[in-house]
Amino acid sequence: MDELAIGLIGAGRIGKLHGDNIARLVPGARLEAVADIRLDGEHRLWAAKNGVKKVYDDPGEIWKDRDIDAVFICSSTDTHAEFIVQAARAGKHIFCEKPVHTDVRLIREALDEVDKAGVKLQVGFVRRFDHNHRKVHDTVASGKLGKPHIVKITSRDPEGPPLSYIAVSGGIFMDMTIHDFDMARYLAGSEVTEVSAWGAVLIDQNYKQYGDVDTAAVMLKFENGALGIIDNSRAARYGYDQRTEVHCDRGCIRVENDLADTSVTSTADGVVCEKPTWFFLERYNAAFADEVRDFVDAVKNGTAVPVGGKDGLEAVYIAMAAGKSLRENRPVKLAEIM
Amino acid sequence: MDELAIGLIGAGRIGKLHGDNIARLVPGARLEAVADIRLDGEHRLWAAKNGVKKVYDDPGEIWKDRDIDAVFICSSTDTHAEFIVQAARAGKHIFCEKPVHTDVRLIREALDEVDKAGVKLQVGFVRRFDHNHRKVHDTVASGKLGKPHIVKITSRDPEGPPLSYIAVSGGIFMDMTIHDFDMARYLAGSEVTEVSAWGAVLIDQNYKQYGDVDTAAVMLKFENGALGIIDNSRAARYGYDQRTEVHCDRGCIRVENDLADTSVTSTADGVVCEKPTWFFLERYNAAFADEVRDFVDAVKNGTAVPVGGKDGLEAVYIAMAAGKSLRENRPVKLAEIM
Amino acid sequence: MDELAIGLIGAGRIGKLHGDNIARLVPGARLEAVADIRLDGEHRLWAAKNGVKKVYDDPGEIWKDRDIDAVFICSSTDTHAEFIVQAARAGKHIFCEKPVHTDVRLIREALDEVDKAGVKLQVGFVRRFDHNHRKVHDTVASGKLGKPHIVKITSRDPEGPPLSYIAVSGGIFMDMTIHDFDMARYLAGSEVTEVSAWGAVLIDQNYKQYGDVDTAAVMLKFENGALGIIDNSRAARYGYDQRTEVHCDRGCIRVENDLADTSVTSTADGVVCEKPTWFFLERYNAAFADEVRDFVDAVKNGTAVPVGGKDGLEAVYIAMAAGKSLRENRPVKLAEIM
Amino acid sequence: MDELAIGLIGAGRIGKLHGDNIARLVPGARLEAVADIRLDGEHRLWAAKNGVKKVYDDPGEIWKDRDIDAVFICSSTDTHAEFIVQAARAGKHIFCEKPVHTDVRLIREALDEVDKAGVKLQVGFVRRFDHNHRKVHDTVASGKLGKPHIVKITSRDPEGPPLSYIAVSGGIFMDMTIHDFDMARYLAGSEVTEVSAWGAVLIDQNYKQYGDVDTAAVMLKFENGALGIIDNSRAARYGYDQRTEVHCDRGCIRVENDLADTSVTSTADGVVCEKPTWFFLERYNAAFADEVRDFVDAVKNGTAVPVGGKDGLEAVYIAMAAGKSLRENRPVKLAEIM
Repeated sequence: MDELAIGLIGAGRIGKLHGDNIARLVPGARLEAVADIRLDGEHRLWAAKNGVKKVYDDPGEIWKDRDIDAVFICSSTDTHAEFIVQAARAGKHIFCEKPVHTDVRLIREALDEVDKAGVKLQVGFVRRFDHNHRKVHDTVASGKLGKPHIVKITSRDPEGPPLSYIAVSGGIFMDMTIHDFDMARYLAGSEVTEVSAWGAVLIDQNYKQYGDVDTAAVMLKFENGALGIIDNSRAARYGYDQRTEVHCDRGCIRVENDLADTSVTSTADGVVCEKPTWFFLERYNAAFADEVRDFVDAVKNGTAVPVGGKDGLEAVYIAMAAGKSLRENRPVKLAEIM
Repeated sequence: MDELAIGLIGAGRIGKLHGDNIARLVPGARLEAVADIRLDGEHRLWAAKNGVKKVYDDPGEIWKDRDIDAVFICSSTDTHAEFIVQAARAGKHIFCEKPVHTDVRLIREALDEVDKAGVKLQVGFVRRFDHNHRKVHDTVASGKLGKPHIVKITSRDPEGPPLSYIAVSGGIFMDMTIHDFDMARYLAGSEVTEVSAWGAVLIDQNYKQYGDVDTAAVMLKFENGALGIIDNSRAARYGYDQRTEVHCDRGCIRVENDLADTSVTSTADGVVCEKPTWFFLERYNAAFADEVRDFVDAVKNGTAVPVGGKDGLEAVYIAMAAGKSLRENRPVKLAEIM
Repeated sequence: MDELAIGLIGAGRIGKLHGDNIARLVPGARLEAVADIRLDGEHRLWAAKNGVKKVYDDPGEIWKDRDIDAVFICSSTDTHAEFIVQAARAGKHIFCEKPVHTDVRLIREALDEVDKAGVKLQVGFVRRFDHNHRKVHDTVASGKLGKPHIVKITSRDPEGPPLSYIAVSGGIFMDMTIHDFDMARYLAGSEVTEVSAWGAVLIDQNYKQYGDVDTAAVMLKFENGALGIIDNSRAARYGYDQRTEVHCDRGCIRVENDLADTSVTSTADGVVCEKPTWFFLERYNAAFADEVRDFVDAVKNGTAVPVGGKDGLEAVYIAMAAGKSLRENRPVKLAEIM
Repeated sequence: MDELAIGLIGAGRIGKLHGDNIARLVPGARLEAVADIRLDGEHRLWAAKNGVKKVYDDPGEIWKDRDIDAVFICSSTDTHAEFIVQAARAGKHIFCEKPVHTDVRLIREALDEVDKAGVKLQVGFVRRFDHNHRKVHDTVASGKLGKPHIVKITSRDPEGPPLSYIAVSGGIFMDMTIHDFDMARYLAGSEVTEVSAWGAVLIDQNYKQYGDVDTAAVMLKFENGALGIIDNSRAARYGYDQRTEVHCDRGCIRVENDLADTSVTSTADGVVCEKPTWFFLERYNAAFADEVRDFVDAVKNGTAVPVGGKDGLEAVYIAMAAGKSLRENRPVKLAEIM
């Protein structure tokens, strides 16, 4: 395989982001085809701009295409498991956006098909590729700070999604916190065994009609004994707030947000610095390209993908436990879910 | 009352700290007498150095002394309620170290006596007088950031107390986190209604024999809808870690630790800053003098003390609820305790 | 002109950097040809990797090639003026690395040819495209801080060049500080009128044999009345130190170095942050692509280049004045040089 | 000598500051007498508040008083040399505010008298006692960063003094920069040998009528080969800006301003930190007490004072050289002055 030929399924915002990165920033790969069930002229224009000639409204065309080595599943969450199964059966390697699915039975079946087919499956937990969080992970994993005791994650979006999206999002834990659940496992280097979650509707009362919350606090227990705490908000007016911290036996490492520049402006009115970069497209811009580069490398070199199917499944388990904990106002062990 | 004459009860570490501050840094007050049930030569020397002539081994002498306007109760926690009652009956104003007591019935009785006597009672939640936490409080209270959504407190000691102390401390929540519970109420500007607490023994396995933990994570719900999270460790090897943060409707305010100096030293080995000041005596050095100044002012001017008996009682309720939550592994409403 | 066809002259380190950027990161341009008078197999491999078929050992081939719209002059400084003249006569737009030349008469003649030919000339003062320095410039230029009073530039390399390079570099002011002289004009928004320069050999005594220094301090006077100060070192062991600051009538803006990540690691040994990014390739990585994008846009849209021939000439005047000031130990007015 | 009895001469702003510190914060010393040639009721009140019974309008009374061990000379600069001579002849130890005098002949004569009398003389360069600058000094002096190469001092006042003061101040170098000249010697651990100074009137055109400037840049050469740069402004609207930095062979140490608290407030409008503490009384508050404590200790223990007569004299030499450099627009060697 000289150049990895990639078929993209679902050309929405995140699909286009991956497509652009494949076309421009990922050496050793090319965007070969694009499929979107709601294909329109705008999709065609975008594909053409990236030199893609194969444009379909049926993902089935992707499975059939023998030129295609790997697929990127960026369609809506409810299609992920089915598309993973079909891609695996067609012998394609798979990059799938998070969450893998919200139905754990379907996820397990899909992972079985991936195993049987012997293809690679990477899940899009992009934050693992961020320079800051990776530094925390690497430092903890090196053991030089000793064992982790407390894992802290601050994760706040600058603004909530439209209410129409809230209706189908699966709730804050499955949609938003799922990134933090993966981050927690990544930083602690250990599995989550129990979850205690609280939420509140403080920003937009409309969340209530969907049984969802816009503000949340979550505690985690890890197999290695460490404790975790996460706080979430759908509205940090100052920008995307993404800080992580691990307190260990011999010390603590933490990372701050990225800023557009390092300026400090001092006047009689105060001393002002830059706000955090606005949202995930800005903050994780480089990480999005890096996760694709690593996927392409893993496929081409036959090595393990950095974020696999099990990672996708575990995060969903934790999100389900968190949801149950919120509804029943009690700590929930993952064993209850799994 | 030209100068407030103060009798100190209990001349241990914290008692001497208050005594030194009264003698040297608090205008309008003088240290008139010292009583310690284990009075020895070292206490006498210390008293003499501060110009105190009345030195007793019986606190009863303090109640009788008509020259004395106010008392500082710095004896062991189990004596606090009784001494408050006796001081109140003797018509003395009272500054009492935290916690007021660990038995809420005794606290309530003591507060009743204080009310009846019409004396002032201030509780030693010194962190409210820290320049950093106070700035967070004042900013939130000003309303300019809108309503509080998330209150975060990081509170880690540089090293645990001796095990002999752990045996009688009342547990981490009553001894250490109680400061954070008071801080949470102070910052949120609202009462805590429910607590969910987890703990772990990760630093010193000896804690287990006392049924205590050395690492903790706590979630709080407030009457105003906000959520709170606290993390505690008995061993932050880098120094006393005391950071607070309140995320509000229109923004977020947070404070970092104080450092001995602002130096940044850059070499091939790295870029190094100062560690946080070592422990509470260093970090809250100025705050200890300020809380006494404010107490003296309140007594002399007949105004309200900044931290009253109700504050002392509420923090104990929360600590009890946290203990119960830890033991029963479930969220505990304060109504269950009160 | 659909796509700007670019011929690269001089495929050393900086030439390859520009070539790579043109080939990969600059939309609307392509690398059409490469010429290097010391052409070897490594150059050919590099060109092939970037899809370039025209590879010459004679820059003259570039002038003749009618497909080529613009040239990048990245050869040694002593060839710059001559190549600018030839490129201009051939009607090619020109991007020329700094310094334009060290002989101001030749520079002026070259700029005359550029004017006559009506082609664009951009000089490679890449730091103007850095996000940090640009923020300082934009803030000062906006006028919201009032008039500039003091312009401060800290500019230290992590390690000196080989002595063989020092021999032909033209001295620290022409080779290294010239970037700071341009930065000073850019930030102050005003021309330099007088220079006072001091230097010392503190790092490597071998500099003395070339009449050069490795440490320098320079003061500048600007037409608008502001004062400037620059400090230079050839050896900041902690990395490339590039900070700028402008103190103005109503306040001050300053920028710090970029770091690889925002981590803070706290242990009993200290609190450690990342060092500055190592050298100019790391620090100005994005700026190198941005200056080329802006050049391509200016040529294609017929607008002014962001850094023109006059900018190249003025910086050389200042460098000459600084050299004279250092040799004669007295302030030197630019009028003496011009 | 049980307690050092101190006579204060000149009860203006700085005199009162020292007097208050002696009375309240300096163990082992007492304020015995106060003399001010413009003695008024306000002085008497202030003295009474500090328990001082001896209040004179004639400093001569101080020399005669055999109870007095040491004097603080806080009167106007033009009286310093004469008062030092008289105090020395009376056998009093001397703390003298900066500058010692503006006439170096008178300073030398005064220092001779001090030597002859065998009394201690400390000069009030208070910044040496600041925790930040001291950390820079101690780190450089420890040798762990190797030899100093570049000494940088940013020193800006939040607002200029009244013009009436400018008229008699001796000019910016003798009045304001003299602190920085002492700091430069202190940090470099070496004598200044040459000065090159520039100034400008950018804030208040009235400075011109006094031949003074409100903005300055100064370069220094040190005996040990290092270079120094200082920038001054009479108007940093954001507060007192006092930063120092020493770049050495193996690395760099720098210190930032002190802030009232460590808060960071993030909103849609920006991320805001505290401004530097307002002026020298706030910034050097603790240092003012520390310099007096050290003086008292040196006198009582018969050890060397931390800042002696030679330090006072050298700073005046540098200030004179800077003034000459500014007037003649050329570097001036200290040998020309001394």
